[in-house]
Amino acid sequence: MEMLINVPETVVADALRGMAAAHPELTVDVENRVIVRSDAPVAGKVALVSGGGSGHEPLHGGFVGPGMLSAACPGEVFTSPVPDQMVRAAAAVDSGAGVLFVVKNYTGDVLNFDMAAELAEDEGIQVAKVLVDDDVAVTDSLYTAGRRGTGATLFVEKIAGAAADEGRPLEQVEVIARRVNEASRSFGVALSACTTPAKGSPTFDLPAGELELGIGIHGEPGRERRPMMTSGEIAEAAVDAVLTDLNPRNPVLVLVNGMGATPLLELYGFNAEVQRVLGERGTAVARTLVGNYVTSLDMAGASVTLCEIDEELLGLWDAPVRTPGLRWGM
Amino acid sequence: MEMLINVPETVVADALRGMAAAHPELTVDVENRVIVRSDAPVAGKVALVSGGGSGHEPLHGGFVGPGMLSAACPGEVFTSPVPDQMVRAAAAVDSGAGVLFVVKNYTGDVLNFDMAAELAEDEGIQVAKVLVDDDVAVTDSLYTAGRRGTGATLFVEKIAGAAADEGRPLEQVEVIARRVNEASRSFGVALSACTTPAKGSPTFDLPAGELELGIGIHGEPGRERRPMMTSGEIAEAAVDAVLTDLNPRNPVLVLVNGMGATPLLELYGFNAEVQRVLGERGTAVARTLVGNYVTSLDMAGASVTLCEIDEELLGLWDAPVRTPGLRWGM
Repeated sequence: MEMLINVPETVVADALRGMAAAHPELTVDVENRVIVRSDAPVAGKVALVSGGGSGHEPLHGGFVGPGMLSAACPGEVFTSPVPDQMVRAAAAVDSGAGVLFVVKNYTGDVLNFDMAAELAEDEGIQVAKVLVDDDVAVTDSLYTAGRRGTGATLFVEKIAGAAADEGRPLEQVEVIARRVNEASRSFGVALSACTTPAKGSPTFDLPAGELELGIGIHGEPGRERRPMMTSGEIAEAAVDAVLTDLNPRNPVLVLVNGMGATPLLELYGFNAEVQRVLGERGTAVARTLVGNYVTSLDMAGASVTLCEIDEELLGLWDAPVRTPGLRWGM
Repeated sequence: MEMLINVPETVVADALRGMAAAHPELTVDVENRVIVRSDAPVAGKVALVSGGGSGHEPLHGGFVGPGMLSAACPGEVFTSPVPDQMVRAAAAVDSGAGVLFVVKNYTGDVLNFDMAAELAEDEGIQVAKVLVDDDVAVTDSLYTAGRRGTGATLFVEKIAGAAADEGRPLEQVEVIARRVNEASRSFGVALSACTTPAKGSPTFDLPAGELELGIGIHGEPGRERRPMMTSGEIAEAAVDAVLTDLNPRNPVLVLVNGMGATPLLELYGFNAEVQRVLGERGTAVARTLVGNYVTSLDMAGASVTLCEIDEELLGLWDAPVRTPGLRWGM
């Protein structure tokens, strides 16, 4: 796959310059790699900070704005940001009400956010953390002890962001974020590998005519390779993998997420099959979101994330949000 | 490229079922292939109807909603919808104030919308039409006499949709739509070919290490093939091609549009280069939109569309819109 880039070394900085130009409502510090709501800090409001390797856009920078994240720290492609970015972000957005770090479960992210939390607290910023680990495909993985953090990150950032917007205190926002993560499970499928700018060739080998079930968002190995399956068969495999682990008794939020290169036409068709399988399994659907939200560069494929909700979480999901990547009700 | 589909024959119907499930605010007639705002017809308001071949999502179905289209008619992949769909759509959304057909300049679309306009008028519906022909790459093409209609379709649908929302009469909405088209130009670049479900293999041959300048949104040939260029060089080629034809004296709207498989990370980086070149050429930018809006299935690449605006058009661009694919201010 050819890339629309200058040189691999400037991919992240170039993207940040382009974000700054497109989104005057964000303050983008290209040199220090921090994206902040221009109106931060918001008086009395708990701030949410997330971050991770680049290559998953719109996650996380595209989710900065009213109703969701206060700031995001992008690392190099598929590489954790460093603690200094996270501390800078926390300092920029803390109103005195404290900061919640939303951390996907990858070893580098976990270590760096832990260190950043200590440093921020040394500066007098109150910090809480929530770890997102929703991917049911494998326990332990290439970059992770325990389950990987994938699509549920969007649910956590949106719902905890709405709780913070309501003026809830840090401990309550943290509890909400944990509840969302615990109620969420994901399963992803790759139809092709992805190519990082630095490597310039596919990060793993997936022969034509085969797919990988249970893939991670960096192309980490999943559960098994199989000859190509239909959209309906893939929906059955993904939904059943999630339901086996989640077993929801209440309605769910559904995220049908594209890995990057799969056309929206196909994602909507896949959603039809996901909804069919959920109906056959007796799982009620409250809301559905379809699109490219937690991507893996140019990987083809999709993931399914379900989040079991109650009235409170649904109200927070439906609350207004205004970010480059997710926006409604404002 | 492997596809996330059942069988090629049901791709469009499957996608419509998936859209219906995700968007309860739309009424999706899967059998007759018409997507309508659920609250249509809106009393006293001019209705906008568009349509075209599938494979360009979110265009057009994803642009149905308050502030933009009243209805859309998807054809088979890269194939015009038929007049019956357009007449059905017009009848569903006409409040008595008339209907504007937004037609991309492809021979099949033009013929079918012409016939649909006659049939709708026979049923007592007042119809006006606007032809979108913004692509400066070539005059006449594989499916087109004259310039092709591409990214400017988004500008026309958004701005004319806002004019209709203000309660303007059909003649005025038509004039606004024509002004937007006449003030808009586009130029696209392909880094890879796309694959239609029916064919199952790339629609044209683009060797690794080469790109095609001036590509159409169905992979129609452009101006020339070249060895791979940097993002900055591509931005110069695309912006200069547009500016040569447009020569704007007022600020422009910028659309940096992904063809489908190019990651958002790269699109933002490309936008940084587009903005740099516009600055160097002395063209002021009023607003910028970056993302996958007028796509070509899984083609890698991007297009640049500029629209020269004045205060009136900018106000209509900024007006609230609420569709699956474009949403702000509501």
